Amino acid sequence: MGTNRLESFSDGVIAVAITLLVLGITIPDPAHTASLTATLGQRWPEYAAYVISFLTIGIIWINHHVMINRLREADHAILILNLLLLMSISVLPFATGLMATYLKHPAGRSLAAAVYAGSFLVMAIMFLTLNRHILLRKAHMIGTELTLAQRRQILTRSAGGSIPYLIATPLAFVSPYLTLAICGAVAVYYAFPVASGVARTSSSG
Amino acid sequence: MGTNRLESFSDGVIAVAITLLVLGITIPDPAHTASLTATLGQRWPEYAAYVISFLTIGIIWINHHVMINRLREADHAILILNLLLLMSISVLPFATGLMATYLKHPAGRSLAAAVYAGSFLVMAIMFLTLNRHILLRKAHMIGTELTLAQRRQILTRSAGGSIPYLIATPLAFVSPYLTLAICGAVAVYYAFPVASGVARTSSSG
Amino acid sequence: MGTNRLESFSDGVIAVAITLLVLGITIPDPAHTASLTATLGQRWPEYAAYVISFLTIGIIWINHHVMINRLREADHAILILNLLLLMSISVLPFATGLMATYLKHPAGRSLAAAVYAGSFLVMAIMFLTLNRHILLRKAHMIGTELTLAQRRQILTRSAGGSIPYLIATPLAFVSPYLTLAICGAVAVYYAFPVASGVARTSSSG
Amino acid sequence: MGTNRLESFSDGVIAVAITLLVLGITIPDPAHTASLTATLGQRWPEYAAYVISFLTIGIIWINHHVMINRLREADHAILILNLLLLMSISVLPFATGLMATYLKHPAGRSLAAAVYAGSFLVMAIMFLTLNRHILLRKAHMIGTELTLAQRRQILTRSAGGSIPYLIATPLAFVSPYLTLAICGAVAVYYAFPVASGVARTSSSG
Repeated sequence: MGTNRLESFSDGVIAVAITLLVLGITIPDPAHTASLTATLGQRWPEYAAYVISFLTIGIIWINHHVMINRLREADHAILILNLLLLMSISVLPFATGLMATYLKHPAGRSLAAAVYAGSFLVMAIMFLTLNRHILLRKAHMIGTELTLAQRRQILTRSAGGSIPYLIATPLAFVSPYLTLAICGAVAVYYAFPVASGVARTSSSG
Repeated sequence: MGTNRLESFSDGVIAVAITLLVLGITIPDPAHTASLTATLGQRWPEYAAYVISFLTIGIIWINHHVMINRLREADHAILILNLLLLMSISVLPFATGLMATYLKHPAGRSLAAAVYAGSFLVMAIMFLTLNRHILLRKAHMIGTELTLAQRRQILTRSAGGSIPYLIATPLAFVSPYLTLAICGAVAVYYAFPVASGVARTSSSG
Repeated sequence: MGTNRLESFSDGVIAVAITLLVLGITIPDPAHTASLTATLGQRWPEYAAYVISFLTIGIIWINHHVMINRLREADHAILILNLLLLMSISVLPFATGLMATYLKHPAGRSLAAAVYAGSFLVMAIMFLTLNRHILLRKAHMIGTELTLAQRRQILTRSAGGSIPYLIATPLAFVSPYLTLAICGAVAVYYAFPVASGVARTSSSG
Repeated sequence: MGTNRLESFSDGVIAVAITLLVLGITIPDPAHTASLTATLGQRWPEYAAYVISFLTIGIIWINHHVMINRLREADHAILILNLLLLMSISVLPFATGLMATYLKHPAGRSLAAAVYAGSFLVMAIMFLTLNRHILLRKAHMIGTELTLAQRRQILTRSAGGSIPYLIATPLAFVSPYLTLAICGAVAVYYAFPVASGVARTSSSG
């Protein structure tokens, strides 16, 4: 199978998932809203979770493009691993909504934040698994010439991207706000590289 | 009509349907949730139904690609049969939500599980109908050279894929859990082939 | 502007609209459902409206493809007229849901059915307007050679497709069921042509 | 990175966002609807906000196409600025729903209208920022030959498009209806150019 339709289907799923995030920003019920200004202000977790998830999915999309772009063709294993990656991305509107809904409820916020960062962690692991499968086991399907050292270096960087989520997930039971801050920092770090070296790192997927 | 736009429209519909599945994973109302851990745990049918439906639609997408890829062009009958297949896929977010909502309600769960497996059955039949139409009646529109024996063999395998759903649907009135388990087993069977022979089988649509 | 991106954007909008229709098939609340069989049975207007709208949008998509396929390029007026056509298609999930919700409520069903058929009428008129604009005013942008007589013939057939909706809309105040039946008959007529001549008619947009 | 997949992903996000707008047109609850005619009539803000937002997103899509079409390739900064633009578009279903819900509630309508026009303002600024980045800082990635004067002229026109929203946003606290009227006038102005000169202006992004 060529990679064109794999790319276009993946683009479609990611585009729908990223746009469905907006359903997590809810419109206050006019019947129970004394002051719209105050109500909208209290809902800042919805906006924070929206922005962080949007940027994170957007960055995964960029990296996905770089990863698939290396391939000349795709086999059944790649298709299935890609499907699992798409599943981990598609579930993010739920995790984002859960985080936004519970961040202000002491009883549930630790779990909600752990589910949020944990979902990003699963996504990062799925990405790494597919990337590893392509670079180490399907190297003959890669169009560009890459040495084993180069391929290992890409994977090390890719693995590095999941470490913040590995820390942020259990940290949710200490402070869910810290978990949110780490997820946000990761998104900003990859989106607005301070140096061109970082840009190169993040765009090499 | 060329098959490019047929593919891109089908990809779009399948991508939206697969991503809409996430709307079936609901966020518990904080006002009625004493323990988020317990509430999320009780909702495991939502996650099970999500994963099974996501994998099943993903596998249908792979097989759809293989099926359409054989075609050089498409006529009105193919477009309409494909539209009916897309309709049977698009209805799955409803069937998945129904299953997830009723699996724990003794009064409705048999019917819900029957609707769930029955929807997969309809989808499998629509797929087989289109595949049969292409391979037996529109063989002159196929780009690859395939003997009649080869075409019949593809159809036999394709028909085989609907047998588990044919069994799982009435079985829902005995045990809805068994129905769910069969649907899950089918998805896992096609997703993670134990032998390369199975992989070849499933990817030849 | 080339027509490639016009097609891909239109495909995207139509694919999302057709898939969003499923949100109109609602899951009964388990807390208020004594018999799921009876409740699902009572909701047949949801399924009927779903199938009719799905087929109708699917047929418009086929015809849209034929219409745009004739063009070599697109100018601002074509883009805007196409946007208005897409708007009339995108509103159909609302019109479908309204019809399904009110068909069994004597007080609102006439209006709901009129809105339903009226939405199809607006869509058909938008399609005709764009087709007319392309065939009569932008004939120099058409890739295929078509005589004025051929172009007029296409438009006459295209105009003919809106007549049933023109009848079905006011008829809603006599019988909303009849309106639904006419909309359904139109969809079936174009989807399953009884003769190859009809097939040719419907696929020439 | 080539611009093909950037275009197709952007098309996907914009297509989903524009189609999700329909979720802001709500179906009245039959249990609380004495007269469907009256209820639907009272909800005109939903229809007005829908039409204005649909046209505005549609015009941004046209301009986006013109902007990206100039590029031969895209780098990390362009991808991220484009992602921020897509985020500002994806949030419009929320802003549209907020406006529609509160336009008739004296307590919240000023803020809702300010959020509505303010969202368009943010979108226009994001568009201008990306266009400026491309035309002034990434001029070597542009395929067409454009003099600095021509590039500055495009940017001046692009900047001009955000002025109405700059006025309409604070004006919401004087009259939300006026804000809505300005947003509507902008959409109509760009959609139906009175003179071909305006058409040329709007289609040059």
